[in-house]
Amino acid sequence: MTLSGELLIGGTARRGQSGEIFGYDAATGEKLPGSFGGASASDLEEAAALAWEAFAKFRETGLEERAVFLETIAEQVLSTGEPLVERAMAETGLPRGRIEGERMRTVIQLRMFAAEVRRGAFQELRLDPADPERKPAPKPDLRLRNIALGPVAVFGASNFPLAFSVAGGDTASALAAGCPVIVKAHSAHPGTSEIVGRAVQRAVEICGLPAGTFALLFDAGREIGQGLVADKRIRAVGFTGSRTGGTALMKIAASRAQPIPVYAEMSSINPVILLPQALRSRAAEIGRAFVGSLTLGAGQFCTNPGLILALEGDGLDTFVQAASEALAQASAQTMLTGGICQSYKNGVAKLQGHAKVRQVALGLEGTGQQASAALFEVSAADFLADRHLQDEIFGAASLVVRCGSEAELDKVLQVLEGQLTVALHMAEGDEGIAQRLLPELELMAGRVLVNGFGTGVEVSPAMVHGGPYPATSDGRSTSVGTLAIYRFLRPVCYQDFPQSLLPKPLGSL
Amino acid sequence: MTLSGELLIGGTARRGQSGEIFGYDAATGEKLPGSFGGASASDLEEAAALAWEAFAKFRETGLEERAVFLETIAEQVLSTGEPLVERAMAETGLPRGRIEGERMRTVIQLRMFAAEVRRGAFQELRLDPADPERKPAPKPDLRLRNIALGPVAVFGASNFPLAFSVAGGDTASALAAGCPVIVKAHSAHPGTSEIVGRAVQRAVEICGLPAGTFALLFDAGREIGQGLVADKRIRAVGFTGSRTGGTALMKIAASRAQPIPVYAEMSSINPVILLPQALRSRAAEIGRAFVGSLTLGAGQFCTNPGLILALEGDGLDTFVQAASEALAQASAQTMLTGGICQSYKNGVAKLQGHAKVRQVALGLEGTGQQASAALFEVSAADFLADRHLQDEIFGAASLVVRCGSEAELDKVLQVLEGQLTVALHMAEGDEGIAQRLLPELELMAGRVLVNGFGTGVEVSPAMVHGGPYPATSDGRSTSVGTLAIYRFLRPVCYQDFPQSLLPKPLGSL
Repeated sequence: MTLSGELLIGGTARRGQSGEIFGYDAATGEKLPGSFGGASASDLEEAAALAWEAFAKFRETGLEERAVFLETIAEQVLSTGEPLVERAMAETGLPRGRIEGERMRTVIQLRMFAAEVRRGAFQELRLDPADPERKPAPKPDLRLRNIALGPVAVFGASNFPLAFSVAGGDTASALAAGCPVIVKAHSAHPGTSEIVGRAVQRAVEICGLPAGTFALLFDAGREIGQGLVADKRIRAVGFTGSRTGGTALMKIAASRAQPIPVYAEMSSINPVILLPQALRSRAAEIGRAFVGSLTLGAGQFCTNPGLILALEGDGLDTFVQAASEALAQASAQTMLTGGICQSYKNGVAKLQGHAKVRQVALGLEGTGQQASAALFEVSAADFLADRHLQDEIFGAASLVVRCGSEAELDKVLQVLEGQLTVALHMAEGDEGIAQRLLPELELMAGRVLVNGFGTGVEVSPAMVHGGPYPATSDGRSTSVGTLAIYRFLRPVCYQDFPQSLLPKPLGSL
Repeated sequence: MTLSGELLIGGTARRGQSGEIFGYDAATGEKLPGSFGGASASDLEEAAALAWEAFAKFRETGLEERAVFLETIAEQVLSTGEPLVERAMAETGLPRGRIEGERMRTVIQLRMFAAEVRRGAFQELRLDPADPERKPAPKPDLRLRNIALGPVAVFGASNFPLAFSVAGGDTASALAAGCPVIVKAHSAHPGTSEIVGRAVQRAVEICGLPAGTFALLFDAGREIGQGLVADKRIRAVGFTGSRTGGTALMKIAASRAQPIPVYAEMSSINPVILLPQALRSRAAEIGRAFVGSLTLGAGQFCTNPGLILALEGDGLDTFVQAASEALAQASAQTMLTGGICQSYKNGVAKLQGHAKVRQVALGLEGTGQQASAALFEVSAADFLADRHLQDEIFGAASLVVRCGSEAELDKVLQVLEGQLTVALHMAEGDEGIAQRLLPELELMAGRVLVNGFGTGVEVSPAMVHGGPYPATSDGRSTSVGTLAIYRFLRPVCYQDFPQSLLPKPLGSL
């Protein structure tokens, strides 16, 4: 497949003239074929104008039409075949199985939202019938529905080049809600973005939707991304990335003449709490499973287990021992980008140089953009004394916090920031302490797991991939699962409308 | 009834030592009996600590228990009897019928949320069952519910001393969600606030709930209100008031270590669009009805019709003529406070002194804190040239914008800010233009009405009392109607929980 490196705007493709970006082979660091032209302010202007124009028609598409559109995107993404897989593998360093699985996940997400659109519950249709006889004043006819917010800017994530990128969850849920989407491609996988962007563009054409329903922009700097969030026609933002990036966008959005919601999924260290009886009965087993979760995809998951909390004792020693042995044999893995690899190494070096932190294991060494897994430990008192010890290290590094007592464990839990997930490992006899901790855990995270790790994020209606700040910018929302559609909707009430003027879904109530 | 002027904290009452505030008779300007002690930082600290402590138990109260609590508040508010009515009338200058009606509205709101709590749909309970046989990985058991955000700070409104105040919609919906509430009393009606606050406090005690479930603070300055929004134990804010006040709270909330949502209902001029056939067939009738809506409650409604848009012609002239005649006979009315009255007079004087604005009618003159209704007109071109002409004048003033063409009407609509309501007056033959305008109106406001005025805000499930910024801080929400409960909830997912650890509502799915 030849990559043109063009911007996709309004059903056409054209070369961006504002700088250029390239894809790199994550394994070798070599430049991959293709050069991607950066968008200029006038490209952004055109994309935003077309999105606004498209919004009028797209938001009122029928449920069936919109569902078919999402399914057509899914088909088109699937039909990209081998070229997409190869390009994504090269740009990210992720193995074939992962990329193929992630494409299927992307397809499943699109189909799930198609089903959700057909179901129609997201419209929240309500009718309070009129009562002209009511005293002292007649009761009006009131009808409610949710309408789409407007065009949405989506920022692709580095670590999920398909499922959280051009046609990923943010795009799927925004389109499902009736919002046109402008994607700012992540510069770590421009070729993957182009291939998927063209698939979405084809689906727009096949379904006969307004050309402005979708656009893909490359950005050689930060101006276009920031400009999108500031643009008056953009009415919401979906973002997955760093806390620095997310909070910068939040600031721009809040200082607009009309502030807009930013749904930024930013950082999480996903505490794992090992309860005493679980450690007594299967510490080594948990240790090995933990390393499996920690090293999955080179640890580049938002839900990666970056913090282990447990009470001192033989069980914890056994856990650390088993985890250390498993981790020492873990191969170095290619990270997504040179920058991410360097950040990871800096984070690990910081812990290595920390006076109170002890390194307990290091994975096998690698070359170039490969990184070794790492496991550290620290006492609860020392953890409590340095709040930077809860900074996320994006990658396969984790820190065991040894607590001298339940009271100390409580103290650690109380200082932890908002999280995407928190996991409890428990066995018979741990119910009491688990019950006691649960309220704290619910308030801390969007998902609480028992006897598992958060790295698997199921695509299904009951999933919550969100959590209190700074895990996300808005703990009331989720970016995975069907509830994600509600991020892009707002209610409108229609009072005493004549039948002829009522929006279609409200007419038949 | 003797008013003690005490702060209500943790089931007790005690005198605030940080300054004092007084209630004033709106009609005479005289000081009313009672002096209310302002809260200090340590009062705030204690109320917040108790609210946080209460939160643990209160958020897990059963649906029936919580519903009964809301109904008990309703009973207690009703049982305040004549003393509440008299004090509220004195402090606000509002007539008996209005105060009695507003108390009933407050009671109805509390009962509506009790019913909503019993229905339980707000919990959003979901189950995705496990599938241990699924390949390539087993599917976990996932359950979802909404949980309460945490203690909520509520700022009472000046203009609805009961329905949007101590036991008003924000308080009712926050309590319904399972959030303890700390109310910052509006200084325009401290006596009313105390009476209602004591009613809520009695309900807390009768129902055996934690004493920190509710608190009422008086604030002689702004520190306590601002301190509440900054306090780490406060997790959301409900506010009804000025744009200056609302945006100040938004700023504090956004700059916290953990930002929290602010639901501020701020300002709206509620455009009313008179379509040609409606004017042709019943211009005078609409003009009289308009003045009725404009002058209701001295115009002190968030949904007051502050802007009339229509095409030039005989019909518009007839409308203005009829409205002018009705308005010229409108009695001056006592406004809520001296400050509000002065602001209103300043706003009217500004329009009177505006080179491009023509005063077409003035209501009867009053004395003291009474204000006369006022009607102005301006050409669309001049309206477009001065964006301050859409500043809200809180009170019974309205501006007619004369549009030379439909294109000019469109231009005016495009520059309007977000609104709570927008109304269309139409008759046979206006369907085409109404259809054309509707998409713009939906995007502008939370409620669109046909052949009515927004001043009546029904308390019912399909109501939306919200709208895009700056009508409110968050256009995705409503402060009236059952959807208001969702402002104070967030979803949590429970993965692979043993039955014994599952929160009760999730165990029986």
